[in-house]
Amino acid sequence: MQLGMIGLGRMGANMAQRLQQGGHRVVGFDPAPGARGRLVAAGMEAADSLEALVSALEPPRVAWIMVPAGAPVDATIAALQPLLAPGDTIIDGGNSFYRDSQRRAAALREHGIAYLDVGTSGGVWGLAEGYSLMVGGDAEVAGRLSPLFAALAPAADRGWGHVGPSGAGHFAKMIHNGIEYGMMQAYAEGFAILQKREDLVPDIAALAELWRHGSVVRSWLLDLTAQSLAGNPQLEGIAPYVPDSGEGRWTVAEAIELDVAAPVITQSLIERLRSREGNAYADRLLSAMRDAFGGHGVKPDHPPG
Amino acid sequence: MQLGMIGLGRMGANMAQRLQQGGHRVVGFDPAPGARGRLVAAGMEAADSLEALVSALEPPRVAWIMVPAGAPVDATIAALQPLLAPGDTIIDGGNSFYRDSQRRAAALREHGIAYLDVGTSGGVWGLAEGYSLMVGGDAEVAGRLSPLFAALAPAADRGWGHVGPSGAGHFAKMIHNGIEYGMMQAYAEGFAILQKREDLVPDIAALAELWRHGSVVRSWLLDLTAQSLAGNPQLEGIAPYVPDSGEGRWTVAEAIELDVAAPVITQSLIERLRSREGNAYADRLLSAMRDAFGGHGVKPDHPPG
Amino acid sequence: MQLGMIGLGRMGANMAQRLQQGGHRVVGFDPAPGARGRLVAAGMEAADSLEALVSALEPPRVAWIMVPAGAPVDATIAALQPLLAPGDTIIDGGNSFYRDSQRRAAALREHGIAYLDVGTSGGVWGLAEGYSLMVGGDAEVAGRLSPLFAALAPAADRGWGHVGPSGAGHFAKMIHNGIEYGMMQAYAEGFAILQKREDLVPDIAALAELWRHGSVVRSWLLDLTAQSLAGNPQLEGIAPYVPDSGEGRWTVAEAIELDVAAPVITQSLIERLRSREGNAYADRLLSAMRDAFGGHGVKPDHPPG
Amino acid sequence: MQLGMIGLGRMGANMAQRLQQGGHRVVGFDPAPGARGRLVAAGMEAADSLEALVSALEPPRVAWIMVPAGAPVDATIAALQPLLAPGDTIIDGGNSFYRDSQRRAAALREHGIAYLDVGTSGGVWGLAEGYSLMVGGDAEVAGRLSPLFAALAPAADRGWGHVGPSGAGHFAKMIHNGIEYGMMQAYAEGFAILQKREDLVPDIAALAELWRHGSVVRSWLLDLTAQSLAGNPQLEGIAPYVPDSGEGRWTVAEAIELDVAAPVITQSLIERLRSREGNAYADRLLSAMRDAFGGHGVKPDHPPG
Repeated sequence: MQLGMIGLGRMGANMAQRLQQGGHRVVGFDPAPGARGRLVAAGMEAADSLEALVSALEPPRVAWIMVPAGAPVDATIAALQPLLAPGDTIIDGGNSFYRDSQRRAAALREHGIAYLDVGTSGGVWGLAEGYSLMVGGDAEVAGRLSPLFAALAPAADRGWGHVGPSGAGHFAKMIHNGIEYGMMQAYAEGFAILQKREDLVPDIAALAELWRHGSVVRSWLLDLTAQSLAGNPQLEGIAPYVPDSGEGRWTVAEAIELDVAAPVITQSLIERLRSREGNAYADRLLSAMRDAFGGHGVKPDHPPG
Repeated sequence: MQLGMIGLGRMGANMAQRLQQGGHRVVGFDPAPGARGRLVAAGMEAADSLEALVSALEPPRVAWIMVPAGAPVDATIAALQPLLAPGDTIIDGGNSFYRDSQRRAAALREHGIAYLDVGTSGGVWGLAEGYSLMVGGDAEVAGRLSPLFAALAPAADRGWGHVGPSGAGHFAKMIHNGIEYGMMQAYAEGFAILQKREDLVPDIAALAELWRHGSVVRSWLLDLTAQSLAGNPQLEGIAPYVPDSGEGRWTVAEAIELDVAAPVITQSLIERLRSREGNAYADRLLSAMRDAFGGHGVKPDHPPG
Repeated sequence: MQLGMIGLGRMGANMAQRLQQGGHRVVGFDPAPGARGRLVAAGMEAADSLEALVSALEPPRVAWIMVPAGAPVDATIAALQPLLAPGDTIIDGGNSFYRDSQRRAAALREHGIAYLDVGTSGGVWGLAEGYSLMVGGDAEVAGRLSPLFAALAPAADRGWGHVGPSGAGHFAKMIHNGIEYGMMQAYAEGFAILQKREDLVPDIAALAELWRHGSVVRSWLLDLTAQSLAGNPQLEGIAPYVPDSGEGRWTVAEAIELDVAAPVITQSLIERLRSREGNAYADRLLSAMRDAFGGHGVKPDHPPG
Repeated sequence: MQLGMIGLGRMGANMAQRLQQGGHRVVGFDPAPGARGRLVAAGMEAADSLEALVSALEPPRVAWIMVPAGAPVDATIAALQPLLAPGDTIIDGGNSFYRDSQRRAAALREHGIAYLDVGTSGGVWGLAEGYSLMVGGDAEVAGRLSPLFAALAPAADRGWGHVGPSGAGHFAKMIHNGIEYGMMQAYAEGFAILQKREDLVPDIAALAELWRHGSVVRSWLLDLTAQSLAGNPQLEGIAPYVPDSGEGRWTVAEAIELDVAAPVITQSLIERLRSREGNAYADRLLSAMRDAFGGHGVKPDHPPG
């Protein structure tokens, strides 16, 4: 098959390459000339505008968007839609909020353009190992484009699927990331306890490696953790500062809206917020309160030099 | 009545004074001569040894211990017991673990000595406002000594009570402190959110003061919080470092042992641990993991100068 | 002063009465004739339409809305606005989302109508004890209407205040309720642990009463808890089912948006969700997982009868 | 090599079989004749007493204990020790508390008997896939017995290791299980949210299967979860009742003792407690409180029939 890949950042470029390796023709576009150049150097075609990209594809066209969630997706769709014709398909492979995907699908349907929301997992390893793809939208369209998904997935029959109507793909990816937050936090806490008992278990990296084989906690995240620890068991040079992106927050909000208790996923998000609080007001107030009722004193903020 | 007060730190000295104001005769002992001197200066008697203290009291004697929980209590009891006679009473008014109190009561019973465990709340304000006293042990002994409790409590008939057999007083105090942790954390979080929206609510201290009257969250802790905020709304000079003492930990352990879910009290304790983690390994590992699977990079620990 | 009270449910009716007792003239409106009748029986005036209500007031008019948050507030404002004139004021004393209040204030400003958002705490006890009032909006308008707030508050100079611009009143009330959730949960957990050790502390209600005097955890919520426990220490006839309303959810969402860790307020909300989960899927999946890796078996859902 | 396996429950019997398949001679003992019979039927030797088992082994002997943690381990060691000679080794492959293992190792050292604590993971799948083994104790002894570990592990050079001195093996296994709790809870919450949106993602089992390939959350626990869901996506017949065993509780207690914040592992344990609370007192008290201050009413425990 052939498709246009819009957005040639790391994710988009890697996916383009895996599609090409799978025998598909990829025409790419990115506003950055360097990104386009890299695509051409890798043996693919690059268009220097959306118009050129659309012209380079035979109908019915497939435009796969890999741009940051939010306004960039809306802007890309707004620019693409007038260039496309009924029967064409836009795929959003980014981390969009599922309700945005539902809205966009409905709007494009008015123009006869199909819209698939494809939750994509696999990170920087996807190029080599394949991506997990959760496809939302019209089942018939998803079926027609299955060769693309099969090329991106770890195997033609594994790791991808049509999971439901519009929004379902990004909904599934959102929950996936919520689970990911919880798993990461569980490992992080466990290794943090271990690290305090290096008198007892001196080689944490070796233990992580050991657990990769036969243990109940073996996982791909553990594989990566073991690698990270092997190179830097004390995690030197890494600040205790953990960003979060939309999916974790959306999962928490969705759980509350659905009246589902999700304490561990929620707490995992909160721990990330906590990691970024420089001089936490709450803790300082607790210290002030203890002093106020118990005369316990407070730890001064700037110890005398 | 008359009693010996052993341990003339802030709590012991204040309680001695309130007992004296209530018309009781107090003989105090503390290894620190300065503490003894302050007691005498306040119009009470001081003994310079436990022997002297016991000799100064008429049987049946009452020895009230206000020393740190743990080994100091055991050491004080070990020194006192041979000096006392059947019919005498030892009261532990500190923050002992309730099972220690049960063990001590059983051991002293062998010698005919009564033992009351008296959970004591009120902090530095107890001298002026009275203490809340939760009395555990023999009901008859507690009843006989009720004039002492009545003098220490906010009023003769309020704020104290015999709550159960040996251990019950310290058990009740332990739970009291667990609740205290949760309440403090709830306020601290609320004010921390407010502090981020000073554009909207510029005077947090005034809001705390407002809530003291008529709101659902009015409490004594809020009274103190409002005072603290009035003097220092930005909590300047106070490090975000919150100690914890045994009762919170014991409450958490007890809840688990009893199969009772106590997530908020538990999390309040964990937040205190968190406040003291200098360079949290867990957060650094999360950051390393994110980089490992997503190529997100990490924030360097020591930004280039 | 004089004002129109729109919405004569329990909160509105009680507030009308307290305003009347404070010497103000209250004209009330409610679509339910019964509610209007009760107002008249209590010596106030009732209007049978918004038009009648507006006509009965001398300009500049004050219309105080006590209707459910959300659409009812918008509907009431939409009906009121054409009846009012520049210089008039609408007050929303309900539990509206603060951003809705900001939006409404801006829209009414176009018509020369002032809008105050007044977070109101005190529940069913407000009539007798006074309400805590957090006033958001124009400071000059708030100052002009201060006799109304002074009458509603516990005292003329306490328990109410202008806390900031439009939205600030409801923002403050939202945080207030978040704190309330955390405090309630802390007490609930503490008493739940106690209840498992009735062998040790047999009279929980007496302990709650005791803590009201001199303890660190004394509060108005504890006063009410002690009353509830005194009448029904085993809480018989009460299902373990805890509703929540918007403010708790908004506080959680706001904390996340502001990057403030609020684990205890958040967990308190989650516990309420949890209380309402009939047959929790998560727990059943955990049980299935344990069986899958450890062969632990599962507890059957419907034990053989 | 040869060894005695004491305790022929599922874990012990499976491990015996895997050791036999690895070329080792296994003599087994269990007080239950049936368990011994199954061992013989599987081609191994069974002894009908500890004496007989010890006699059947050539020195230096290895006795591997697979009995429930706690008193049964102490009882087994007490019975074994007089039968063994200096140079012999006892291995505890169960889920003992690591400090018990440290105590036992020290006591046996007095008799010249080596003691290894071997944290063992792998559950019912270990026979087929191999066990993850964390070995604590003397490194020389661990090295000497490495053929046994190599046979039990997934591969000779993977999935097992000497992780530290006495106690380290069970400490590592304790942390392993703590992480396991957190991971399980993260998955359970994610799927519980999904299950509420079956309108959007109708086939949860298919999604679980999809995630096994290429996603960030792929893991062995997910493999098992996908299997469980494939057979019973609604988890019918499974009560929402989740037991816990010692390791989770010990991990929580250890984290607190080490001043490490482990909120997600802790909350995962609390969720299990929560799953077993029949008629939660805390929730009923929350409901009573809401009624007390807000007049919200309560949900009756037994709705009128």
